[in-house]
Amino acid sequence: MTIGIGLLGLGTVGAGVAEILANPEGRHPLVAELALRRVAVRDLARPRAVPVAAELLTTQAEAVVDDPAVDIVVEVLGGLEPARSLILRAIAAGKPVVTANKAVIARHGEEIAAAAAAAGVYVLLEAAVGGGIPIIEPLKQSLGANRIDRVSGIINGTTNYILSRMAAEGADYGAVLADAQRLGYAEADPAADVQGADAADKIAILTGLAYGGSVPRQAIPTEGIDRLDARDVAYADKLGYVVKLLAVAQRIDSQPGGGDKASGDPDAVLLDVRVHPTLLPRSHPLAGVNGVFNAILVEGDPVGQVMFYGPGAGAGPTASAVVADILNIAGIRQATLPAGSAGGPVGLDPLLAAGSWRRCRLIDGALTTHRNYVRLRTSDEAGVIGRIGTCFGEAGVSIQSIVQFEAHSDAAEIVVITHEVLEERFRQALDAIAALAEVQGVAACLRTL
Amino acid sequence: MTIGIGLLGLGTVGAGVAEILANPEGRHPLVAELALRRVAVRDLARPRAVPVAAELLTTQAEAVVDDPAVDIVVEVLGGLEPARSLILRAIAAGKPVVTANKAVIARHGEEIAAAAAAAGVYVLLEAAVGGGIPIIEPLKQSLGANRIDRVSGIINGTTNYILSRMAAEGADYGAVLADAQRLGYAEADPAADVQGADAADKIAILTGLAYGGSVPRQAIPTEGIDRLDARDVAYADKLGYVVKLLAVAQRIDSQPGGGDKASGDPDAVLLDVRVHPTLLPRSHPLAGVNGVFNAILVEGDPVGQVMFYGPGAGAGPTASAVVADILNIAGIRQATLPAGSAGGPVGLDPLLAAGSWRRCRLIDGALTTHRNYVRLRTSDEAGVIGRIGTCFGEAGVSIQSIVQFEAHSDAAEIVVITHEVLEERFRQALDAIAALAEVQGVAACLRTL
Repeated sequence: MTIGIGLLGLGTVGAGVAEILANPEGRHPLVAELALRRVAVRDLARPRAVPVAAELLTTQAEAVVDDPAVDIVVEVLGGLEPARSLILRAIAAGKPVVTANKAVIARHGEEIAAAAAAAGVYVLLEAAVGGGIPIIEPLKQSLGANRIDRVSGIINGTTNYILSRMAAEGADYGAVLADAQRLGYAEADPAADVQGADAADKIAILTGLAYGGSVPRQAIPTEGIDRLDARDVAYADKLGYVVKLLAVAQRIDSQPGGGDKASGDPDAVLLDVRVHPTLLPRSHPLAGVNGVFNAILVEGDPVGQVMFYGPGAGAGPTASAVVADILNIAGIRQATLPAGSAGGPVGLDPLLAAGSWRRCRLIDGALTTHRNYVRLRTSDEAGVIGRIGTCFGEAGVSIQSIVQFEAHSDAAEIVVITHEVLEERFRQALDAIAALAEVQGVAACLRTL
Repeated sequence: MTIGIGLLGLGTVGAGVAEILANPEGRHPLVAELALRRVAVRDLARPRAVPVAAELLTTQAEAVVDDPAVDIVVEVLGGLEPARSLILRAIAAGKPVVTANKAVIARHGEEIAAAAAAAGVYVLLEAAVGGGIPIIEPLKQSLGANRIDRVSGIINGTTNYILSRMAAEGADYGAVLADAQRLGYAEADPAADVQGADAADKIAILTGLAYGGSVPRQAIPTEGIDRLDARDVAYADKLGYVVKLLAVAQRIDSQPGGGDKASGDPDAVLLDVRVHPTLLPRSHPLAGVNGVFNAILVEGDPVGQVMFYGPGAGAGPTASAVVADILNIAGIRQATLPAGSAGGPVGLDPLLAAGSWRRCRLIDGALTTHRNYVRLRTSDEAGVIGRIGTCFGEAGVSIQSIVQFEAHSDAAEIVVITHEVLEERFRQALDAIAALAEVQGVAACLRTL
C-alpha cells in the first residue's frame, strides 16, 4: 500500500525528508511504502542537491495540498503564514498533517487542534521540539500513565552553544554570539533564539501535551541570555553551578494565600511556565548538556525522572522526526485499512491525536516560589554582608550562601543564593537591599534550581 | 468504553499497576477507562497494601486469561514458565498482551511474536528494558526513519550501582556487593545481574527492535562485573575513563577478510552484540549515568546520537511503562473500534506490532574490532615497556597510551590502551606479551570505547 506524501517546502528539513524517502534501504520497511508525490517550492529554477524529480515541483502550495495523490501533507515551511492556512486546508480536505513548525503550533495550536478533531485527522509535530529527540511521542503515549509534575528542558541549541562556550572559555556573550553567527550556529538576526521566544514556543507545546491543556503562549514569562554577564557564569561555576537557558512547566498543587480559589476557575490545573537563564547544580541531569545538544527532563508520578537527550536541530535529526510522524500515520492506517479495503479510518487514537482534556492556567508570577541568585555591587565596608542578610531575614527570605567576590578600590561584589522563597517576598527584600546606602546596585538576578 | 484488564501477578510491579488503575485522576483520561477485572496471585490470604478487591483475586492464572471480561492480559510474573504458556494462551484467545518479562521475551520472543502475528494481536513490552524509560516505543516508532548504527546502554541498575560506588569510594567489588544486598539494591542471589545475563536479555530485545531481526540470545558474548578489580576502576579514572557494564549492539558494514560472504547468508545484517565492563571516556554521554539509573544511547542515520535516561527499575517506573503499553493498545482500539461498533480490529499497526523484517546474524568474535585496556604485571626493569610495545607493533596493534603504575619491590603494573584493532590481532599480541620473561601475567583486559 503506497502512501502519497506532499511536501510543503524543500529547505533544509524538506531536503532531509526527501533524502530519507529516496533511500529507504535499511530503514523500517514502511519507509519504502512512502512516495513523494508533490513538492511546493518558492523557486523552480533553483539548483538542488536532493533527489527530487523536477516534475514533482510546483510553486503552488495549495496544489500540493489538493492533489488527490497526496495522502499526508508535510509542512516544513516554518513561519505563521501561509503555513497556518495550508495546514487548515489539508485538515479540511481530511488529510493528516505532519509539521515541524513550532511557531504556528505555539500560536495557532488550539485552532488547528479543534479543526483536526472535527475532521478526524491527525496533526503530528515531533520535529517541532527537540529536533531529532523523540519527546512529543513519549509525552503523548509512553508517559500517559503519569501525573506530570515538571517538564524542564534545554530546548534551544543556539543559546546552549553560546552558554557552553561562555562557561568553557570565560568569554563574553557578545563575542561568542558573533563567533556563533560566523560558524552558522546563530542566525544573522538571533533575536528569537537569544531572547527566548523559540524556547517559549516549544515549552508552550510541551505544556499542552504534558498537562492536557494549553496555556496562552504570550503570557509565558520569557527572559533570554542576551543580557547575561560573563561574570555571573564565572561566579556560578565557583559556587558549583552551570548557567543554562531553561524552559520549565511545573504543576503547582496549591497556591499560597488561596489565590487559585479566587481566580474564577478553581478546577483548572495551575502551572508555572517560564523561560529564563537558570543556575543548575553541577550534578543535575541537565547540567552536562553542552553545545547545540538539547535535553528534556520529565518528572512525574510514578515514573520519577526520565530524560531525553539528542541533537536539537539540523536537517538530518529534524527529518528523522518528521518521517517518524509520517510512519506513525502510515502505521495506524494499516491497522484501520487492511489491504483491499475501501473504507476510511473509523476513529482516532486519542493518545496520538493528543486532544486537550483539561483546563490549565498560569499562576500569578508574584505567587511563584523559586531559589534565586543575586549579584550586588556594594561598597567594600565592614558590616555590609550583615545588613544585606538582615534585609533578607526581615522579608522572611532564607539564605543558602552569601559570598563576597573580588573587592577592589572601595567596591565589592556580593553574591547571594537563597533557598526557595515566594517571589513577592524576594522582591520586597531586594527593594530594601537596593535602598541600603552601601549597595550601589543589583547587578544580576537569576533563578536557581 | 471500558477496557477490562487481567493481571498475572501482584508483586512489586503488579501492585504498582493496580495502584495506577485505582487512581486515574491527573493521568491521561484513557486510564480511567481501564478496569481491573481479575488478578492471579499465588496466595489469596497474603495481606496486601494495594487497593484490589478480594473477589478479583484468584490462584488460577488461566482463569484470568480466559475471563471474557478481560480484554488485555498483563503478565508481570517474571521467569520463563508459566509466563510463556500464559502469554501464548492469551494470544490464542485473541487477547493482546503486555509484559514486563525480559527473560521470556529474550528466550521465547520469536515463538511469541510468530503466534501474535498469526493471531493479529499486539504483545507489548516497554517495561522489559529500562524500567520507566520510554525506549521500546521510541525504537519501534520514533526512530523508524533511521538506519541504526549502534545501540549501547547501561541497562542493569544493580551493576551500575555497584560500579558507581566502586568508582566513588575506591571500594572492592565484594564489599560493595554485600552492602548493596543489605540495602536491597542487589538480590540475595545476584548472579543474573552481576554476571551480565540480565543485560544480555535486554540487549537481545533491543537488537531485535533496532535492526528488525533477532539474534540468538545464548550466542551473545557476556561478561559481568564479578571479576572486576577495584584497581582497574582506579587506573581507568586516572586515565580519564569510567568503567560501566555496557550492553552494545552494533551494525558491521563489512567484515575483514570477507568473512560475511562466506557465511552462507550474505544478505543478513551483520551485528556485533555483547555485554561487558567497558571503559568510557569521561565526556561520553553514558559516562555520567550513576547509581541505579539506566540510559540507552541510540546512534543512527540521520538522527545522530539520542539518549534516553531514567530509573531502570522499581515498582513505580516499571508500572508506568506497563500502563503505557496498556494505553497504547486501548488507544489503537479506539481508532479501530468507534463506540457502538461491533466489529473487531481490522489490522495491526506494523510499527507497534514490531514484527521482524530482516535477518540478522552475529559476527565471529575474532573478526570484531575494539579498543582495549590491558593491565600487565611485570618485573620492574628498564626496557620492559619497549618490549611490550614491540609485541603490539609486530602484531599490527596500534597503541594510544602505555603507562607504568606503582612500582614496588621488583614488581610493576603497566596499563596499555590500544587504538581500535582487530580482536584476533590483539589476542596474538597478548600471547606474545604473556610469553615475555619480564611479564608475570595479564592481570586484566577490558574493552574501551
